[in-house]
Amino acid sequence: MSSPVGLHRVVTPAGVLPQAAQRLDASGQIATDEVRITVERLNLDAASFHQLRSAHDGDGDAVRAAVLAIINERGKMQNPVTGSGGMLIGTVDEVGPDSPLGLKPGDRVATLVSLTLTPLQITDGLADWDGLSEQVPAKGWAVLFGRSIAAVLPDDLPAETALAVFDVCGAPALTDRIVRRYDSPTVAVLGGAGKSGSLSLAAAARAGARTVGIVPNEREQQLLQSVGIADHVALADARDPVALAEAVTAALGGPADVTVVCVDVPGCEHGAILATAEGGTVIFFSMATSFPAAALGAEGLAADVTMLIGNGYLPGHADFALEIFRAVPGVRELFAVRAAR
Amino acid sequence: MSSPVGLHRVVTPAGVLPQAAQRLDASGQIATDEVRITVERLNLDAASFHQLRSAHDGDGDAVRAAVLAIINERGKMQNPVTGSGGMLIGTVDEVGPDSPLGLKPGDRVATLVSLTLTPLQITDGLADWDGLSEQVPAKGWAVLFGRSIAAVLPDDLPAETALAVFDVCGAPALTDRIVRRYDSPTVAVLGGAGKSGSLSLAAAARAGARTVGIVPNEREQQLLQSVGIADHVALADARDPVALAEAVTAALGGPADVTVVCVDVPGCEHGAILATAEGGTVIFFSMATSFPAAALGAEGLAADVTMLIGNGYLPGHADFALEIFRAVPGVRELFAVRAAR
Repeated sequence: MSSPVGLHRVVTPAGVLPQAAQRLDASGQIATDEVRITVERLNLDAASFHQLRSAHDGDGDAVRAAVLAIINERGKMQNPVTGSGGMLIGTVDEVGPDSPLGLKPGDRVATLVSLTLTPLQITDGLADWDGLSEQVPAKGWAVLFGRSIAAVLPDDLPAETALAVFDVCGAPALTDRIVRRYDSPTVAVLGGAGKSGSLSLAAAARAGARTVGIVPNEREQQLLQSVGIADHVALADARDPVALAEAVTAALGGPADVTVVCVDVPGCEHGAILATAEGGTVIFFSMATSFPAAALGAEGLAADVTMLIGNGYLPGHADFALEIFRAVPGVRELFAVRAAR
Repeated sequence: MSSPVGLHRVVTPAGVLPQAAQRLDASGQIATDEVRITVERLNLDAASFHQLRSAHDGDGDAVRAAVLAIINERGKMQNPVTGSGGMLIGTVDEVGPDSPLGLKPGDRVATLVSLTLTPLQITDGLADWDGLSEQVPAKGWAVLFGRSIAAVLPDDLPAETALAVFDVCGAPALTDRIVRRYDSPTVAVLGGAGKSGSLSLAAAARAGARTVGIVPNEREQQLLQSVGIADHVALADARDPVALAEAVTAALGGPADVTVVCVDVPGCEHGAILATAEGGTVIFFSMATSFPAAALGAEGLAADVTMLIGNGYLPGHADFALEIFRAVPGVRELFAVRAAR
């Protein structure tokens, strides 16, 4: 019996989820709801790679040996020091008859679940990798569970571009879902000139919203204005609740129905709450969000707002983000500017 | 011009919210949307009181002098070391004509917003307080803003009991709101034998749900079974995702539509997500919730669940919680047992 979240692949310790496991069974024989992928490249998490490089004084051969040892011992690529993994690119090799993922042999895919929970076996000793970059050419296989996430790489975009879109694809999908619950919605996106912010702005506009993108400095202001994906662009420090609420209110004629937090700095919780209308929703996508600051802030402000922990997964999120990316020239321009910097 | 969140009462530094202010204007003249309360008792936050007591070696006179000095300097009771405040009990003295709070002179109330943002002036030098307990008899006044929260103390319950209910009153109100969005809902409450947990279980049942209360040990299991407020009671460690999901699934016949997290221990995020059905909702009320653990956990499990930061405020939440408390004998029994321990 296979488990959709991969419990059957956990070797030690017994009974934990694959991410928490010390060792996974990475054998290539797949269960009826699994998918086997022929690996082409690993993208190591930046924190993990930097830790390994500095632990081995930048010696590429030693870093390669260390990564190989981790994968061989653990049946997955999870740096024991940082706890982090990365993702991979490869080609679908075999699809179990009960797999719900909608993949077929020959699809070139990126895995959107972490390497920390993906069974992985390397067969070439990472011979083509110099150990000096996070991009790891590799031969071998990986296994996806029944409940897993992989996105087919599109033919019309470079893989790097598609990966940059996939990296933030949860934000536009959840923004779309929430904004559609409101009539004549208004939406404020904090960090509107970033990748997740720009996709969220475009998603909100497509869902019928009037939008304001909030940016922290004049350079971002000019950038966001020039690409034309927000109805309004306003300059405000998202950590200053009063200034932020005033900027949003001035742009939209009142507080926002939906406020989307895409800035990765701490201390934006109270401003986001204050900038949001009663009955509105704040979607927090920033990993710098403080749970207690949000919960206690809403209570202190007697604010009847729904506060969502931004879930990076929704069915169809990768395709949805690609669709917006293709359809909205301003989003493409913004990604290009950011990639060039 | 008065601000509904009290910006007009901030003296220093300019432009911040009252909670972040160094000093508030606590003058007794109220704006048209404010309410002045004659203070009867302050309940200091436990962390604040313990800090003051230990800083002054248990000398009650010194603690009293310190609290007086804070209130005089800051125009509010906010311990500069812990940052925390507490709440107060008093009687409504004057209600501005534009106040939306629904209070009238003579109402005996508890403030449900923190003392850290409530303008406060003491007129008796705290002469009736020995400085040896968090309960501070006091004469003076406090001011509520347009957007603020105060609950009228009911005639039929001791003040201590009402305060215990008010302390967790956001949980049953939000549980009710979310559960009513589902047809034939099933609900799991982690920490079902606690105060917020029991009120949430009762609220879920009233909203039409089949419920399971999850408890961590046999004593809690017996307690929750004996008061009869959950359809099922199951023993599981909420920090063990697989065990928790199995317990919930066994009790409800499948994962829960709504999972309510009321246990104040870290590490319950993945279990709550795994125990929740696709399309379901997890409401996190525990201040021990880790935002990144929840966000990354849902992504790693490819779980399409809505995750809410439990907002302690909803309109009418205090009355709603009292109504459940009065109507459900099992909840009253459980509060009594906990108060007696």
